Amino acid sequence: MSTTLPPVRPPTLRDVALGAGVHPATASRALNPATRPLVNTETASRVLRVAESLGYRPNPIARSLKTSRSATVGLVIPDLTNPLFPPIVRGIEDVLGPAGYNAWLVNTDNDADREESLIDSLRSRQVEGLIVATARLQHPLLDRLHAEGVRMVLINRRTANADLPSVTGDDATGVATAVAHLADLGHRRIVHLAGPQNTSTGLVRHRAFLQALRDHGLDDDLGLVAQCASWSEEEGARALRELLDAGREFTAVIAGNDLLALGCYDVFAERGIECPRDLSVVGFNDMPFIDKLRPPLTSVRVPHYELGSEAARMLLEGLRSPTWQVRSVLLPLTLTRRQSTGPPRHTPAENLG
Amino acid sequence: MSTTLPPVRPPTLRDVALGAGVHPATASRALNPATRPLVNTETASRVLRVAESLGYRPNPIARSLKTSRSATVGLVIPDLTNPLFPPIVRGIEDVLGPAGYNAWLVNTDNDADREESLIDSLRSRQVEGLIVATARLQHPLLDRLHAEGVRMVLINRRTANADLPSVTGDDATGVATAVAHLADLGHRRIVHLAGPQNTSTGLVRHRAFLQALRDHGLDDDLGLVAQCASWSEEEGARALRELLDAGREFTAVIAGNDLLALGCYDVFAERGIECPRDLSVVGFNDMPFIDKLRPPLTSVRVPHYELGSEAARMLLEGLRSPTWQVRSVLLPLTLTRRQSTGPPRHTPAENLG
Repeated sequence: MSTTLPPVRPPTLRDVALGAGVHPATASRALNPATRPLVNTETASRVLRVAESLGYRPNPIARSLKTSRSATVGLVIPDLTNPLFPPIVRGIEDVLGPAGYNAWLVNTDNDADREESLIDSLRSRQVEGLIVATARLQHPLLDRLHAEGVRMVLINRRTANADLPSVTGDDATGVATAVAHLADLGHRRIVHLAGPQNTSTGLVRHRAFLQALRDHGLDDDLGLVAQCASWSEEEGARALRELLDAGREFTAVIAGNDLLALGCYDVFAERGIECPRDLSVVGFNDMPFIDKLRPPLTSVRVPHYELGSEAARMLLEGLRSPTWQVRSVLLPLTLTRRQSTGPPRHTPAENLG
Repeated sequence: MSTTLPPVRPPTLRDVALGAGVHPATASRALNPATRPLVNTETASRVLRVAESLGYRPNPIARSLKTSRSATVGLVIPDLTNPLFPPIVRGIEDVLGPAGYNAWLVNTDNDADREESLIDSLRSRQVEGLIVATARLQHPLLDRLHAEGVRMVLINRRTANADLPSVTGDDATGVATAVAHLADLGHRRIVHLAGPQNTSTGLVRHRAFLQALRDHGLDDDLGLVAQCASWSEEEGARALRELLDAGREFTAVIAGNDLLALGCYDVFAERGIECPRDLSVVGFNDMPFIDKLRPPLTSVRVPHYELGSEAARMLLEGLRSPTWQVRSVLLPLTLTRRQSTGPPRHTPAENLG
């Protein structure tokens, strides 16, 4: 004597519109964060309440099941040869996979035209959402995609536009930890190899470096920052050579990332500089394999796998929930101390003596 | 007094069929290498001759221009965290880009189900062709795709099926060079950490190792090969530990690839083994950054960028030409000598004395 329940039909946009007493087009506008401002505030919140209470979900997963296609998310990477990206990709895929999503990667090689063409091609093949690692501070393309309602999470770097959801490392605290470590070892003249200042990572780490110097009562002489035009080994080497050739005095280097630090290793080899005896160096990212360098590189550890998994969870939420709350998530960073940092050759006491 | 030429219209399948005096469906079957055996040999060669003389090209590029979509090629990677892949990707993209193609990457994580799902998803979105780095020797999925006429080039690894076009390194010669280098240094007891034997790279390098030992009049005792279940640092470490724990005597290791060699470095650190004084090690791939290891790793250099560009050129040819000739291309390998190899501690002369 069992009663048979009717099959459960997932609520549709029409159900939401009916429940809220509005036209489906209005409901649709209210449900899309990008078009929500076009709807009267009170109406919008009524639509969202009804959607939430009915358990309404926008369609991507349902649609992909129906068409027996896997749903797909696009990952936009600036430079695949930078070893920080593979762990990010793994973190993303480990979350997307069990949720029934495939990830397609595209590599822009830091070229804005390529980026636009690649993102266009992903959208034209019905990718459901994007995880974007190419953000520059001013990034009209990403602003436009957001305005068009594209579900998107920025990872590792952000734009100046705080409306775009993002998952990044807490770079400022990371740099402060690195400066504190060097100051504890007795360093007073520390230089920074700053990454591109049109990226959030480049700008935030640079500013945090100057702030940390001041916090430790150290000289924040602007000559102790060298600008790098790209996040590459070559640029790191070039910047360190310039500082040395200019006769700057310093005993430690904080490189904007590990690739810039690797460039320092090239200069050490060229010029017979012994690290850390002559010069300490700190990298940023703690990317794979740098524990096996000569000497093993002290580096600010960014939890790339966790950045990836967090960004993927955030995007899934955006794809499933009509009421997606935009957030900027910062994950904490730690310093991994290895043998590329040590006390300066001339300690302050020696200098006094 | 100039005459105006009519606009040049690219020849169509129908033009080819008309010229060859066959039905368009027959022409189509003759033009596709996978279905060509279904057509009478003489008819097929007539269709191919007409296609060639008219300059007929199968449609992908033309179609993509018409729909203002970029044409797209899928790259199937087994493990993006292996640093050998980014240079391959760059080589591929540097050829595809100027030809108007975008590349989409998918990472299978060495999982056959994921691989099938990812390739399905790429095909369902009209990817024009595939470059596949996941080949196992027995690989029914790739055989099936080939039989279905999917344009595809294998890269880095091959299947046992020689009908699938491929671009790989000349692994056998590479291993022979590594053995010769160690033999020249005076090593007589050399072990091999063999990669998975269901991959061409694992099997060919293993066989070439045994052959090279015999060629040098060295003992090819099977106990001097340790099998690794995956191409990973962990497996390299496990295999070397086992050889050491079994009390095997040897003075040099040829690792199936650089990740396995990195695993050896972990064991050196654990057990206080000094490299190369106590044990020499040779890697395979010469992947980025290993020149900065402690000690810098001697490795068989595989020209990954060139593998990528060659595979991309081969695939473009396959996408453009109706008469694609299947080839297996082997690129030459060289040995990059660094500080992880040196003379054995006990030279044969000392042993005699």
